[in-house]
Amino acid sequence: MFESAELGHAIDKETFRREVPALRAALLDVQFDLLEKREFPVVILVSGVDGSGKGETINLLYSWMDPRHISTLAFSAPTDEEAARPYMWRYWRALPPKGKVGIFAGSWYSQPIADRIAGSMRRSDLDDVLEDINRFEAMLVNEGALVLKFWFHLSRDGQKQRLKALERDPRTAWRVTKASYERLKTYDRLQQVAGHVLRVTNTAKAPWIIVEGTDDNYRSLTVGRIVLDQINRRLKQTERQQVPVAPPIVQAIDGKNVLSELDLTRRLDKKDYEKQLAKYQARLSELMRAPRFLDGRSLVLVFEGADAAGKGGSIRRVAASMDARQYQIVPIAAPTEEERAQPYLWRFWRHLPRTGRVTIFDRSWYGRVLVERVEGFCSEADWLRAYAEINDFEHQMADAGAVVVKFWLQIGAEEQLRRFKEREATDFKRFKITAEDWRNRDKWDAYVSAVCDMVDRTSTGLAPWTLVEANDKNFARVKVLKTVCERLEQALAGNSRKAD
Amino acid sequence: MFESAELGHAIDKETFRREVPALRAALLDVQFDLLEKREFPVVILVSGVDGSGKGETINLLYSWMDPRHISTLAFSAPTDEEAARPYMWRYWRALPPKGKVGIFAGSWYSQPIADRIAGSMRRSDLDDVLEDINRFEAMLVNEGALVLKFWFHLSRDGQKQRLKALERDPRTAWRVTKASYERLKTYDRLQQVAGHVLRVTNTAKAPWIIVEGTDDNYRSLTVGRIVLDQINRRLKQTERQQVPVAPPIVQAIDGKNVLSELDLTRRLDKKDYEKQLAKYQARLSELMRAPRFLDGRSLVLVFEGADAAGKGGSIRRVAASMDARQYQIVPIAAPTEEERAQPYLWRFWRHLPRTGRVTIFDRSWYGRVLVERVEGFCSEADWLRAYAEINDFEHQMADAGAVVVKFWLQIGAEEQLRRFKEREATDFKRFKITAEDWRNRDKWDAYVSAVCDMVDRTSTGLAPWTLVEANDKNFARVKVLKTVCERLEQALAGNSRKAD
Repeated sequence: MFESAELGHAIDKETFRREVPALRAALLDVQFDLLEKREFPVVILVSGVDGSGKGETINLLYSWMDPRHISTLAFSAPTDEEAARPYMWRYWRALPPKGKVGIFAGSWYSQPIADRIAGSMRRSDLDDVLEDINRFEAMLVNEGALVLKFWFHLSRDGQKQRLKALERDPRTAWRVTKASYERLKTYDRLQQVAGHVLRVTNTAKAPWIIVEGTDDNYRSLTVGRIVLDQINRRLKQTERQQVPVAPPIVQAIDGKNVLSELDLTRRLDKKDYEKQLAKYQARLSELMRAPRFLDGRSLVLVFEGADAAGKGGSIRRVAASMDARQYQIVPIAAPTEEERAQPYLWRFWRHLPRTGRVTIFDRSWYGRVLVERVEGFCSEADWLRAYAEINDFEHQMADAGAVVVKFWLQIGAEEQLRRFKEREATDFKRFKITAEDWRNRDKWDAYVSAVCDMVDRTSTGLAPWTLVEANDKNFARVKVLKTVCERLEQALAGNSRKAD
Repeated sequence: MFESAELGHAIDKETFRREVPALRAALLDVQFDLLEKREFPVVILVSGVDGSGKGETINLLYSWMDPRHISTLAFSAPTDEEAARPYMWRYWRALPPKGKVGIFAGSWYSQPIADRIAGSMRRSDLDDVLEDINRFEAMLVNEGALVLKFWFHLSRDGQKQRLKALERDPRTAWRVTKASYERLKTYDRLQQVAGHVLRVTNTAKAPWIIVEGTDDNYRSLTVGRIVLDQINRRLKQTERQQVPVAPPIVQAIDGKNVLSELDLTRRLDKKDYEKQLAKYQARLSELMRAPRFLDGRSLVLVFEGADAAGKGGSIRRVAASMDARQYQIVPIAAPTEEERAQPYLWRFWRHLPRTGRVTIFDRSWYGRVLVERVEGFCSEADWLRAYAEINDFEHQMADAGAVVVKFWLQIGAEEQLRRFKEREATDFKRFKITAEDWRNRDKWDAYVSAVCDMVDRTSTGLAPWTLVEANDKNFARVKVLKTVCERLEQALAGNSRKAD
């Protein structure tokens, strides 16, 4: 893996001085184009062995480019807000928006590599993490990001010499500590672990760029040119490269599907409804205060459904059993400007609850495989890859202790029509029916296909869908509440998070 | 203060049932209008004695209104991200955007009241805090927010009875703990402190609304009606109430001002420049790594100046002495959609550095009293009140340990013309001169007035302005660096933050 980076690469002072001015001018130029177009972000990972010039390289990029449009995030121990959420949350919140350059000094690779070297992570667990990382980076690239992963390498002797050199220079001596020399001892282990990590994560979409760190001039010029060339190349790509499209999703030829098989005649009379509502609201209210929930779990509720299926009413019945200080309802409408400048899932990541808290999504990330698919707001390749991205997203929540409960509220076409007309007749403006609602009705069949595909492809063990027969509001509300209670009880009863 | 809230106010069940449906419908209606117009946010503070129905009231508002457009923030111990920034940072980040309702369960009043009761805050310090709060709330109202501050009161006996009643009901018994009864003992002290706090902060812009909490029906109906009436009233205000405009700012009749007195002929030759640049960069680099800085201070740099005055070049020289992982440069351009939905200063608050970090603002909150004033982008009342708001903002930073250094880079009119022409001649697109730059030149005198007023009104002991003679870039850059070093040294040498 590191053979080409132990050849003693070097660039003489003369050449360096001659090359730099043109490189700087070109970098500024390309950065200007990047900013003007605002089509994609540049994500630069800076990693490698100690003393290989990571910090120097970052500072160099700042001095060669316009520092106002670069951000650098250093990640040490997670803050308590970060620790109370999935591992990747801190990286998501640090992603640069389109048009900007974000440098990660330390990244999603740092912790797994450190844990593996320390022996606190098994090889098989490491590989699971690396698979997650591969899918995460593929998602970034598919969303348009240019991802440049630098690994600065030093031979063992090279590292020792670099430390000595840093020590000799009064301007850099402070950077060499006992810990630096300590780390020399784990050199072999780092090479071994890093070699494996780099091999497994050296993907076509986000390959590693290994640079020898011994000679400052060589390293600086190499990084500068690569950044320049890669941004240039990406700017010239007029069409985003799409993942190959999967075979078309097939529909069962007998017309049966998960929605058609729902018994929409299911009802609950008023007396039963009130009894059960009270029962499950009391139970949920207790679960929300259980120490096992407050100290180690969070709850993510997703409500999807046809227009007028009663999402709002169900949400209110669930929320009524919680303390307002504990939950947040996030209605998903059009993304804001800041959200549009980020990968699709960014606007959902930002609302994930911390431990002991609840987020209720009124519509959700499933918009991509529902409305965006049906209306053609995104390409086929985009919504096809979304299934896997969404599964990853929910998996990460569950891994961090979140209980993820997803509802599809289904009503019949006639019942919807009846409710639309009813709403039109009431005088509360809030229930006004828009032309869009009527248009959506015309696409009923397309939505049915989309929903069935969604359920098939994203109903996972950790985050299964619950389909709710919602022609009768009483029945639907009780089913929703009951499901939330049961999922929570099951999760809190488990011996560990993973057992969920 | 609390006399009217000890009269045993009560509403019978019958009346309550009769009144509620119309109130709910009206609240939903008014909330819909609020959301449609997106002109202002509603900030509701819920505070008062234990057992007076704070939680119940919040949950009630959720069930009466559309919970998707309400957020509730409960504030307990600050997270470490919050603790590393000014006290008000956590409240700024929780402000609801225009069109939404934000409920604060616990607020900026909680800590001062608790500290005063515990005896850890002197009366005079409390009064300082209350003055800050008054100005903060006035700012919110001036920015358009509707601020409703509820205080729920119970007589001493009333509180004991409420606790007993909560205990009797199995659905609420869990909420009564030993601590609840403990707090009964401090009843008198709370009344005393709260009485003082409420009196001092009972302003015309954000008056307190004291509600007796004994009877649930009375409390609920009272709060519901007040929220309804106040939002309605605010919706009907077509013109925002402006603060009375201060007497016009006068210019000295001899034509002398702080800018005209600058000696723009000051220069530094290349040799001196390089020597001094190296000296101050090395010093700054050391200061940035000083434990006293890393553990208790942060640095906020503000760069303002005429077009082409050399802000960018100065920023780069300062940044070059810092580690990229330690600082962030924030270029201030047009606000984003999310920023426009918030008070003016919100977009600057969000970028404040945590302890040990640096934020460099390339243009800043002073836009309000410079470009917005000169171009008429805001009203006279808006920019006149901005001086005090800005002073408060910077004072809060300084109180939290930030060293605030502000630069105005001044060049002569001919020098600016020369630089414009030079830029037009270079082929780097990044230096392109826009029509706007030429237009700004026509308003030279108006900008001079605005700058002089700004310096006079916002150069404070904690955050003084440094005017930089910038006709010679070398001189300007060294003066900037030297000033940053000196301010930091002075701050780090001080015995305490306050001494700064």
